[in-house]
Amino acid sequence: MLRDKNKTLIPEGFLFSVGEAAIKKPGRKDIALIYSMTEANTAGVFTTNRVKAAPVKLDIEKIKSGKGQAIIVNSGNANACTGRKGMQDAAETALLTAKNLKIKPSLIYVCSTGVIGTPLPMEKIKAAIPLLTTNLGRHTLRNIASAIMTTDTFPKVISKKVKIKNRTGILAGICKGAGMIAPNMATMLCFILTDIAVEKRTLSRAVRDSVRKSFNRITIDGDMSTNDTTLIMANGMLGNAEIKENSASYKIFKEALDEITYGFARLIVKDGEGATKLIAIEVEGAADEKEAEKAAFAVANSNLVKTAAYGNDANWGRIMAALGYSGIKFNEEKVSIHIGNIKVVNNGIGTGKDAEANDYLKKNIEVSILIDLNKGAASAKVLTCDLTEEYIRVNAEYRT
Amino acid sequence: MLRDKNKTLIPEGFLFSVGEAAIKKPGRKDIALIYSMTEANTAGVFTTNRVKAAPVKLDIEKIKSGKGQAIIVNSGNANACTGRKGMQDAAETALLTAKNLKIKPSLIYVCSTGVIGTPLPMEKIKAAIPLLTTNLGRHTLRNIASAIMTTDTFPKVISKKVKIKNRTGILAGICKGAGMIAPNMATMLCFILTDIAVEKRTLSRAVRDSVRKSFNRITIDGDMSTNDTTLIMANGMLGNAEIKENSASYKIFKEALDEITYGFARLIVKDGEGATKLIAIEVEGAADEKEAEKAAFAVANSNLVKTAAYGNDANWGRIMAALGYSGIKFNEEKVSIHIGNIKVVNNGIGTGKDAEANDYLKKNIEVSILIDLNKGAASAKVLTCDLTEEYIRVNAEYRT
Repeated sequence: MLRDKNKTLIPEGFLFSVGEAAIKKPGRKDIALIYSMTEANTAGVFTTNRVKAAPVKLDIEKIKSGKGQAIIVNSGNANACTGRKGMQDAAETALLTAKNLKIKPSLIYVCSTGVIGTPLPMEKIKAAIPLLTTNLGRHTLRNIASAIMTTDTFPKVISKKVKIKNRTGILAGICKGAGMIAPNMATMLCFILTDIAVEKRTLSRAVRDSVRKSFNRITIDGDMSTNDTTLIMANGMLGNAEIKENSASYKIFKEALDEITYGFARLIVKDGEGATKLIAIEVEGAADEKEAEKAAFAVANSNLVKTAAYGNDANWGRIMAALGYSGIKFNEEKVSIHIGNIKVVNNGIGTGKDAEANDYLKKNIEVSILIDLNKGAASAKVLTCDLTEEYIRVNAEYRT
Repeated sequence: MLRDKNKTLIPEGFLFSVGEAAIKKPGRKDIALIYSMTEANTAGVFTTNRVKAAPVKLDIEKIKSGKGQAIIVNSGNANACTGRKGMQDAAETALLTAKNLKIKPSLIYVCSTGVIGTPLPMEKIKAAIPLLTTNLGRHTLRNIASAIMTTDTFPKVISKKVKIKNRTGILAGICKGAGMIAPNMATMLCFILTDIAVEKRTLSRAVRDSVRKSFNRITIDGDMSTNDTTLIMANGMLGNAEIKENSASYKIFKEALDEITYGFARLIVKDGEGATKLIAIEVEGAADEKEAEKAAFAVANSNLVKTAAYGNDANWGRIMAALGYSGIKFNEEKVSIHIGNIKVVNNGIGTGKDAEANDYLKKNIEVSILIDLNKGAASAKVLTCDLTEEYIRVNAEYRT
């Protein structure tokens, strides 16, 4: 089993390198390259924000081929709202990387994260690319996870073995998140690599579904970024028969992928800017999943609910108020709410157990709020974090 | 011209009193009575939150008559999510007040603000009502504005003269706001009193339209309360011919009403929990007013935009991102953004004047952001405030 210096399980045929381009400031790794030794089936999911960063626009075109071989990514600058120059810069980054790697530019995906509205310092990026190519294989996946951090406080790496018939493949991924995470995976980059052979349309459907149930069900501040990208590359070097949706192995592969994306979603929320608590908000008894999701997001995005959680205050009135303006229809007198295992609301009225629930909030850093609308059978779970003074500090000072 | 001890202009025939009911804690005025010596045409606008407090449900029924003579209001307890008991308590409050005032219960409006989910301490309220009646005339409108404050830092009173033909009428109002203010006037109470005679349907239409352009265009944290109420009473004691929509005087009356509601909307945002800056966000060049409003609210509700304003950071990328997820359609390359008089974005690209705009933010406590979509002729302006550590502190500790 291939493991790198960080003991991360690594799929066959992928090489990594990181470099210093001094994009925002010198002295930190801020550019990275992921390379597959063979062309890989590649799929992706991108931000639904109408304002899309230049590299996102570029990648959306490239992903149509379902093929890829390398990802070049920088932090410190989002290359968003940079007009025609931004598009040229993203294309040039791909072109130069392709030239150095001696592969087709159409196989290179470009990702950027950081400040919006400032043109990429192309001279610095151009200078960094040759060394990235030379250094391929000298760095680890965890090094890349560190290089793409912005306000993240720790690098996010998950890898796992997947048994495909008599062979053992690997799914390994890295992710960055922190602030500006909202439904539809804002300011989030996630790259998942595997040596398992997966047919390209199957790969695309699988990653879309996994993202829907993970990254699209988390929120930190309700904002949504211009750069969100999830890419998956399957280079097939395991040598298994290509997995299709009707393959026996599909379910095993999909479960592993789900675990990775859900694992990252959880890590992103845990690392939400200034967060001290992970809050799981589950709405059940809804008419359909969409309604459950809408209600859960209204509660999860409420600054009042999030500050109450921070203050260890089981203020369920704020939960009721958020449900009330969520836009869904429900009967107030049928609602029940649990905070942890403590039922604080029954038939829309307080049960008088607030002190107990305050105590539960005080004692736990991962807390759950369960809301039962008692009208149907559908449910949805959304992950969020509390809102703290530290969030304000981080975001008021981000550019300064 | 009638002025009370606080020099507030007071319309003819209205009397006020405040009392101590120790609803949340003893030692502060927390209950108040507004009384008109004659029956008044009365109109109101209420929260659109699906979860409505008991007094709101009661008042929505009463307002159908278009008549009223008194308002009894308490702070410290919202009487929301209190089930059947809450409805009984609100009705009993009206009944007791009516008995003491010797008028019909249907003419009494009940309002509550404060914590959600705790039953009203009815014994304390019952004990306070007789004294409120006895003391009518001994207190000022400003005393009432103080008694209904929750997290407000100052009482909000506005009054003005209105010339109706050869007579001079008065419009006087009080208001409370602070946190949880969102589109549709959340946790907001506003009472406007006038001696000008206004026909009841005209009064109703006028107040609805004024609220739409004032309280419904402000946001502090995007949350929306269960108790919001605006009531207007016109007792006609000025003796003018009743104003109807086609009256010559209608425009004059309506302008005065607009000035009062917009004035209060501004005061509420200035007094937003923890706010240090008032931010006016205007979107112009939209296809229609609704689209302009939607875009302006997305920007106004963005925690990232609000924290950037707090940090004096002209981070227009966050404004672009918020426009991008607002749900409206626009061409990124046509957008221009002004922060104050400084054009920071032209055709979707930064103009390089961020330092100048930072300086403008640093030097002003009332700032403006103007976004031009350059697609149509419609516009809308939304008022909001910045998001600060103090907001977190106030809301994390609200019940403790």
